[in-house]
Amino acid sequence: MSKYTNYILKPSIPKGTRDFSPQEMVKRNYIFDTIKQVFQRYGFLPIETPAMENLSTLMGKYGEEGDKLIFKILNSGDFLDGDYLRDIGINVEKFTSFYEEWKTNKTGQVSLSKLLSSKSLLPYISEKALRYDLTVPFARYVVQHQHEITFPFKRYQIQPVWRADRPQKGRYREFYQCDADVIGSTSLINEVELVQMIDEVFTQLKVPVVIKINNRKILSGIAELIGAPDKMIDIAIAIDKIDKIGENGVIEELKAKEFSEEQINKLHGIFMMHAGRVSYGDGIPGEDINQKNLYFLKTLPDFLKKMNVITEDFISNTLIKGIEELDFIFKSVSNCKLQTAICELDITLARGLNYYTGAIFEVKANAGTFTSSISGGGRYDDLTGVFGLPNMSGVGISFGADRIYDVLNELNLFPESVSASTKILFVTFGEAEQNYCLPLLTKVRKAGINAEVYPDAGAKMKKQMGYADDKKIPFVILVGGDEMQSGLLSLKDMTTGVQEKLTIDEIIEKVK
Amino acid sequence: MSKYTNYILKPSIPKGTRDFSPQEMVKRNYIFDTIKQVFQRYGFLPIETPAMENLSTLMGKYGEEGDKLIFKILNSGDFLDGDYLRDIGINVEKFTSFYEEWKTNKTGQVSLSKLLSSKSLLPYISEKALRYDLTVPFARYVVQHQHEITFPFKRYQIQPVWRADRPQKGRYREFYQCDADVIGSTSLINEVELVQMIDEVFTQLKVPVVIKINNRKILSGIAELIGAPDKMIDIAIAIDKIDKIGENGVIEELKAKEFSEEQINKLHGIFMMHAGRVSYGDGIPGEDINQKNLYFLKTLPDFLKKMNVITEDFISNTLIKGIEELDFIFKSVSNCKLQTAICELDITLARGLNYYTGAIFEVKANAGTFTSSISGGGRYDDLTGVFGLPNMSGVGISFGADRIYDVLNELNLFPESVSASTKILFVTFGEAEQNYCLPLLTKVRKAGINAEVYPDAGAKMKKQMGYADDKKIPFVILVGGDEMQSGLLSLKDMTTGVQEKLTIDEIIEKVK
Repeated sequence: MSKYTNYILKPSIPKGTRDFSPQEMVKRNYIFDTIKQVFQRYGFLPIETPAMENLSTLMGKYGEEGDKLIFKILNSGDFLDGDYLRDIGINVEKFTSFYEEWKTNKTGQVSLSKLLSSKSLLPYISEKALRYDLTVPFARYVVQHQHEITFPFKRYQIQPVWRADRPQKGRYREFYQCDADVIGSTSLINEVELVQMIDEVFTQLKVPVVIKINNRKILSGIAELIGAPDKMIDIAIAIDKIDKIGENGVIEELKAKEFSEEQINKLHGIFMMHAGRVSYGDGIPGEDINQKNLYFLKTLPDFLKKMNVITEDFISNTLIKGIEELDFIFKSVSNCKLQTAICELDITLARGLNYYTGAIFEVKANAGTFTSSISGGGRYDDLTGVFGLPNMSGVGISFGADRIYDVLNELNLFPESVSASTKILFVTFGEAEQNYCLPLLTKVRKAGINAEVYPDAGAKMKKQMGYADDKKIPFVILVGGDEMQSGLLSLKDMTTGVQEKLTIDEIIEKVK
Repeated sequence: MSKYTNYILKPSIPKGTRDFSPQEMVKRNYIFDTIKQVFQRYGFLPIETPAMENLSTLMGKYGEEGDKLIFKILNSGDFLDGDYLRDIGINVEKFTSFYEEWKTNKTGQVSLSKLLSSKSLLPYISEKALRYDLTVPFARYVVQHQHEITFPFKRYQIQPVWRADRPQKGRYREFYQCDADVIGSTSLINEVELVQMIDEVFTQLKVPVVIKINNRKILSGIAELIGAPDKMIDIAIAIDKIDKIGENGVIEELKAKEFSEEQINKLHGIFMMHAGRVSYGDGIPGEDINQKNLYFLKTLPDFLKKMNVITEDFISNTLIKGIEELDFIFKSVSNCKLQTAICELDITLARGLNYYTGAIFEVKANAGTFTSSISGGGRYDDLTGVFGLPNMSGVGISFGADRIYDVLNELNLFPESVSASTKILFVTFGEAEQNYCLPLLTKVRKAGINAEVYPDAGAKMKKQMGYADDKKIPFVILVGGDEMQSGLLSLKDMTTGVQEKLTIDEIIEKVK
């Protein structure tokens, strides 16, 4: 224990992680419960998967950058002293002195920990890792349990995920994802329902949102048309960064990915439309957003002709398919009438994850200062292929509970009443009084009222009342000698300060 | 990715972990919801702590055995090839060939992973770990947030924990704990309330239970009296194993811990009483269990005299205190009248965890074949001391959700009705019908009914009905051309098979 004794006076938690107090828990549960209830209303059922997955399940699924951000778990094993190390090829002194050197002077290229997670050693010391998202574990689940599942399978999953990202405001190393996916159905009705669910969740939470919608097939089509059919992901990733790195940054990124000047010129007009920088529609009909979306879709081929992306003898079937799919989605969504959410076509919406192949969604709050997305999703045609089950199309959305929390906090949208707290506190003046209270307490609880007695019978009145104040307990029952004799208890309403004498049955009636 | 490609065809999860299907989730939530509601009824509020704690927070808190069972997380860092290793003292060839040798022939004393978790290297490659229980993170939480907390602090916490235990039937590497603790109060009323909570939870779950109660002060007192005052934990641990290793095993264990023959002789009579093997009471008054408990307590000093543990000129104040505390608890519990649980004094009850200092509890099902404990807890006087906050007494209980699940399953105690599933499925015969259904679906959901439409509009009737069957959806609405024209929908009750024509409003009325 000696190694750790140094730290004992300053308890802390790993950076990027958080504790949640009772006050925060109540607010978080308000969000989770809302989402959960909407998922169930639409026929989604819950599953849970383990926090730890086999490293082989996760590696290679999130790109090279993603692999680095996966938290690996050390294989468990016995403890040994250092003597044995030498026998099998480790110079302990050199090894540790290197580390101390690095730690002190921050010189040298790498830390020992980096070293030990090097490709050549990693497989030997770690076989498990913490899940990075809920999508890959879900794909693994579907393949593993394919014979027990009825398809189309509509599941939801609300669990934490872990990423070794650099922590910053609003970005954590442990955070919850709330995912709903339908797998085993190619019907676009699923996309429509997911849009309705987003609308329902944010209507209930009272957050006005814009749902940006695109289809990866449009991006794929454009990639084909500019003669870079295998580079759709590169285009998507580059465009996705425009808000961070700007127009020139995107151009540089495309150059780095070896797009020709001609290709970049063709793409330029497209990515400059990102986030509505420029519009491609002439004579947009009125202000109705649905009409606009449908008009934009219809005129998209003309726009691409103007940009020299579509030429007379070359049009992409993939692109046409993408337009048709979006047309169906926008028409159906319009048919269902959303409550508060606004749907907006954005043909430059890319989304980073490389497994999307069809419609993609991104949701932003239409109020407050938060600009990052609070929900998103899309269709993937072959997520389970890598686990040996091809041709299993799916579509899903994910709600970012932590960001939604921040938005609700900023906009002051948490309802006052969300609280599971105690309703009645028994305040007593001694052990005899406390004893007298126990059966009464049982009775109050039996009636479904959350109640407690201040445990330390000898405590001062002020202390006991302060406890009720701090815990925001609305009613206090004061029990002294008089009360025990008469059976009439003093009930104090902590909000109004009014005090009255009542029987326990009258109190139950009143507080309920 | 090549290293991992080998595995892609057989998706699996780490041993000792589990996936939970929708059917299992519903049952598990039934247990969690019951426990949660009781916790809140007694004034406990929820907190959550991160899955990852600093290794320094966890190490040294669970004994040497426990330290080994903590899952350590590799520090995150970049990937490197093996060249650099040599420079800082690692002979890569020797290192990896050793590992291959070990892997193939299982010769050699240790695996490479064991090696790398050796004491000399561990601190350099891992600084974080998965929590092993909820108690130590709670102690860390209390110290870290002591200035925001109102004491006595009554918190509950329902989260998974991880242990690198050897997996076996009923023992997992990831499992949930459901803990409630009061910290900052020495009042024995807390112990009484925890007993009531155990009674309430298992009464609601319909599981008959026995709550065994002891007090560590009695064991401490006995340790003092036999002249081994610093060996209370050794005695407790040895006695705790009697069911597994038998009478002789305990004697061997005590010998190994250097108890003298005389000491062992004195202890023998005590630990043979374990689990009611022998009784020490003469003329036990009647069958009332409360009377028995109180009588046993009163006569304990006489029994210990008979065993030559107490001698005429040597009696332990600690022992007397333990007896007094238990006397208060049993009397108060009797005063409150438990609903179904039976409380039983067992002065040989030890419980493994070494931080308990007062009352201890252990709960077993009084029906079925499960013999392991399904809940337990106790008082600890100085859990937060190691983090720099001394003299903060607390008491808590923990419910083992996984074992409770197994007990409910065996005794067939899960209610039929626990299900959050879909109530209505719309079955359609084409795209036009599906389109017609969407606004109806919205209406049904608005009325608070969980509903869905079979997404693939062209699917065969049999397939759609099979989906309703598999998902146990009780009502199906069939929509074809006739229904669209008349607005009268065919509602089929899947339980009775009865089919009738109704408007959507009538259907909502009926299904609600």
